[in-house]
Amino acid sequence: MHARKPIAVTMGDAAGIGPEIVVRALRTLPAGDAFAIADVDVMRRALGFLRGAADMPESPLVVIESSADAAAVPAGSIAVLPMQSAIAGLASLPIGRVHAACGAAAAACVRQAVALARAGEVAAIVTAPLHKEALAAAGEPYPGHTELLAAECAQPGHALPVRMMLANDELRTVLVSVHLSLREAVAAVTFDRVLETIRIAHAGASSFLGRPPRMAVAGLNPHAGEGGLFGDEEQRIIGPAVAAARGEGIDAHGPLPPDTVFMRARRRTAQPGEFDLVIAMHHDQGLIPVKYLGLEQGVNVTLGLPIVRTSPDHGTAFDLAGTGRASAQSLEAALRMARDLALPLSAAGARRSVA
Amino acid sequence: MHARKPIAVTMGDAAGIGPEIVVRALRTLPAGDAFAIADVDVMRRALGFLRGAADMPESPLVVIESSADAAAVPAGSIAVLPMQSAIAGLASLPIGRVHAACGAAAAACVRQAVALARAGEVAAIVTAPLHKEALAAAGEPYPGHTELLAAECAQPGHALPVRMMLANDELRTVLVSVHLSLREAVAAVTFDRVLETIRIAHAGASSFLGRPPRMAVAGLNPHAGEGGLFGDEEQRIIGPAVAAARGEGIDAHGPLPPDTVFMRARRRTAQPGEFDLVIAMHHDQGLIPVKYLGLEQGVNVTLGLPIVRTSPDHGTAFDLAGTGRASAQSLEAALRMARDLALPLSAAGARRSVA
Repeated sequence: MHARKPIAVTMGDAAGIGPEIVVRALRTLPAGDAFAIADVDVMRRALGFLRGAADMPESPLVVIESSADAAAVPAGSIAVLPMQSAIAGLASLPIGRVHAACGAAAAACVRQAVALARAGEVAAIVTAPLHKEALAAAGEPYPGHTELLAAECAQPGHALPVRMMLANDELRTVLVSVHLSLREAVAAVTFDRVLETIRIAHAGASSFLGRPPRMAVAGLNPHAGEGGLFGDEEQRIIGPAVAAARGEGIDAHGPLPPDTVFMRARRRTAQPGEFDLVIAMHHDQGLIPVKYLGLEQGVNVTLGLPIVRTSPDHGTAFDLAGTGRASAQSLEAALRMARDLALPLSAAGARRSVA
Repeated sequence: MHARKPIAVTMGDAAGIGPEIVVRALRTLPAGDAFAIADVDVMRRALGFLRGAADMPESPLVVIESSADAAAVPAGSIAVLPMQSAIAGLASLPIGRVHAACGAAAAACVRQAVALARAGEVAAIVTAPLHKEALAAAGEPYPGHTELLAAECAQPGHALPVRMMLANDELRTVLVSVHLSLREAVAAVTFDRVLETIRIAHAGASSFLGRPPRMAVAGLNPHAGEGGLFGDEEQRIIGPAVAAARGEGIDAHGPLPPDTVFMRARRRTAQPGEFDLVIAMHHDQGLIPVKYLGLEQGVNVTLGLPIVRTSPDHGTAFDLAGTGRASAQSLEAALRMARDLALPLSAAGARRSVA
């Protein structure tokens, strides 16, 4: 059997729960399925935090030298590819606090993972949470993973349009904008941006569904503007963008009233949702329903990159770090999603290979 | 035993599902619990639509002459107080369509119900859905029930500050604004308006909980502004309003990140929510999570009125009207909520009597 490529998992901020949940998630996977890109001492410390936890039998840490070596690591062991630009003393910094060194290390692991993905050595990358302040303290100009990834994957001089998708077992939403004030987010609802979001979501979802998605596009205003009574963005901007997308053969519907579109798209065991995903006009419009039923199963997917990247939808949880009690459920869901996303891509050949 | 006062239920738009769901809901209630204010022929027609439905044994319609007569109507019968300003031929207008006469009749029933509530003849009013366009066609200046009720209950020359609460078995939310475009809703987040919303919610919830509520106040921006990075309304407006409310002894918390505050407030059987209600900064912020799990159990409560008023949280459903298939679940939930709201009031004496 031809071995499938492993997934690279970055450790995230070394002072947060990242290393612990990476250990917890990796030891449950089939042999060769994934490996960590991390500081080895930080991973050893994380293993120590977990010692004694009921679900953690002895799991040895196996240091590997390349992605290809991951295949030889037995199930139950934690394969770790050491980060290239090692930072001395990382594992002796107090956990639960902002350190510039942790921000720098987190970013370095992400860059290393991106390089492996672009070189075709790994099927996907999954990123454990980093801390925005630590990233800033390290002098990184990016507010978070998404922006860092977009910059790493862009051609020189060309901004890469990416969008955040949040997904759980019931609902998927792709956001027109992310970290803008609501006032700015309203202004960011432009024809070009909405159409681009629909196109990126269509391409991304076609990839992981293996068929064209049926997509709902939310309105911006209450009742989707009620025919222009409460705002006209639906008539001026969103409606025309949906029409343009449909003109390209994309199965997009809307603008639909925001307060019911997520309920309509919700998938239940007994009842599939009306839509495969919902295009949300701003951050909280999409994230409120995705998070409403609980955080643990949420996955963040960056659409529009030339590589597959997912992450859990929670943060570094400094208050929990070091206790061994942090749940790896969202990270495990991110690993499953990364595998689902990677599969049709390899089936489709080099479609997403480095341009 | 001293008989408790009945609840008055308005029929809503005669061409919508209102009359049918009123019949369906009333026949399940204890004797004397509630009566309809309606056109008698419209109610007869609705009874006909329901004939044959599995859950509808023969339910006679009993026309009463005053609120007090409702007590004598046996359980399983539908007590109807005819609307005072009868409109001829209402029951022969085609259902499922906008008619000015239906708008006028719906408004007349609401006014009659308000008068009975203010006179102390009924414990509460519950309103079946009306149709905004029919209301406008009848020359009414109000976009919906809430505004009509606020005007009916106001002292001459004094606007009555009211707020909409949406509630189901898991979540309650009170909205800072309702039918404004999102752009206008952002501008409506002012210190005075947020503080007034917190005060109205506190008074209303104290009333139906029988104790001071623990309230969460949502932020306006993603991550509640992340310390001013994505918008400063939390620092300039919402935070100070919460502080002012706390200075008045109100147990308000926030501003909290919008994408997780509703999840935190959600009540489950095994786990009470962290908060009794959430103050939402705009319509969809609050309505998306309330509606996410399905429409049928949602109830709309107008807080700040001198009377108790609830309604189902759905509309006239013209496409379903006349089929006998419309669910009365939300209306039944509205009746239960009205009774819960009315109880502590009568226990507290004339606290909400007409000023």
